[in-house]
Amino acid sequence: MNTNVGQPTKAVILLSGGLDSATLLAIARERGFACYALSFNYAQRHSSELNAAEKIAANLGAIVHKVISIDLGNMGGSALTDQSIPVPDTMSDGIPVTYVPARNTVFLSLALGWAEVLGTSDIFIGVNAIDYSGYPDCRPEYIDAFTRMANLATRAGVEGQHFNIHTPLISMSKADIIREGLRLGVDYSQTVSCYAADEHGRACGKCDSCRFRAAGFKQAGIADPTRYC
Amino acid sequence: MNTNVGQPTKAVILLSGGLDSATLLAIARERGFACYALSFNYAQRHSSELNAAEKIAANLGAIVHKVISIDLGNMGGSALTDQSIPVPDTMSDGIPVTYVPARNTVFLSLALGWAEVLGTSDIFIGVNAIDYSGYPDCRPEYIDAFTRMANLATRAGVEGQHFNIHTPLISMSKADIIREGLRLGVDYSQTVSCYAADEHGRACGKCDSCRFRAAGFKQAGIADPTRYC
Repeated sequence: MNTNVGQPTKAVILLSGGLDSATLLAIARERGFACYALSFNYAQRHSSELNAAEKIAANLGAIVHKVISIDLGNMGGSALTDQSIPVPDTMSDGIPVTYVPARNTVFLSLALGWAEVLGTSDIFIGVNAIDYSGYPDCRPEYIDAFTRMANLATRAGVEGQHFNIHTPLISMSKADIIREGLRLGVDYSQTVSCYAADEHGRACGKCDSCRFRAAGFKQAGIADPTRYC
Repeated sequence: MNTNVGQPTKAVILLSGGLDSATLLAIARERGFACYALSFNYAQRHSSELNAAEKIAANLGAIVHKVISIDLGNMGGSALTDQSIPVPDTMSDGIPVTYVPARNTVFLSLALGWAEVLGTSDIFIGVNAIDYSGYPDCRPEYIDAFTRMANLATRAGVEGQHFNIHTPLISMSKADIIREGLRLGVDYSQTVSCYAADEHGRACGKCDSCRFRAAGFKQAGIADPTRYC
């Protein structure tokens, strides 16, 4: 992966502070990239995620951890950003109310801009199309379409650079992600996955995200290090 | 264009406060859309644009004018957001330093999210591939790729909705845009196109954007109402 002699290739890593993106950062580092971690402050309910992201970025050797603020809360339409919509504690059919409209598109777009400024074409995103909540912007066909658009959108693309959106978790089960992360030294007690975590990063244990996470530890046969309320 | 009896179809209109986007809003209104104008506060040098956008939205009958803040300035890489890079006063070869990495992609992504919240599939953007500065994210092939990605990215897309990114200005000369806007009642003295406008919205008269604008008024045979420093 290292194309410059003596200098590792840079990559932008989308880091939420949850289980998946912490594993993602560990994988990118193992592949030899110099990791530029990017998080967003978008009026999410679970802002303790950002504290988690900061610790994870430091512990897993990110070169820089950048936090970009966007007032998505102003837009409404999701239980994760609109305080008037409750986070459900039962599994839903179809796409749930925790879906944030166009979220991964907004995040990948900003990652694309930063990648261009850094002069790199590698971006990592921890989308998963197996143990997930049915969000449309987690599917391989979406990632392919984003990549094609990115190559047309940018000065780098016009100049012949081809962006590579890495999705190493896309076909992994939650249990496999956890096993891989433990192999790479991820401390999952630091990660916050819960949609309704309290200000100390303690999880509710009831939302979709908590259920997928707890089931993953169970399937992996590993004691769940999550701190619950 | 009006698909609901008695109720106009909503559209999100990207409104910068410049000449092109003011004309865009007037065109969308003439086509019968209920216009939801969207502007961005992204640490741009020319923040007097936002004051202009507010006046234009009100005067051209936007239902709502939303301003989303993003701290793109934090990312660097463009003379429009990085105070350490001067805005050039001569025309450049290739893509100029005023190019903001992935800007239209970030803006369209946020417009897409708001469109989904509003329950509409219509978005207007004032890109122009004729009298423009050579930005890659102003070309028709880019808009097509964004649309394809948008249909895969969203709940609305999964449920069969097809997004329509309207680009009515894309093949128009600056003179044609000005003529069309005047026909539709746009007051161009309110618009701010300059990359280095002062806090009162007065233009420098030297940057690429000022040159294209001045040449447009000249070609259209119309007195230039721009307020210069």
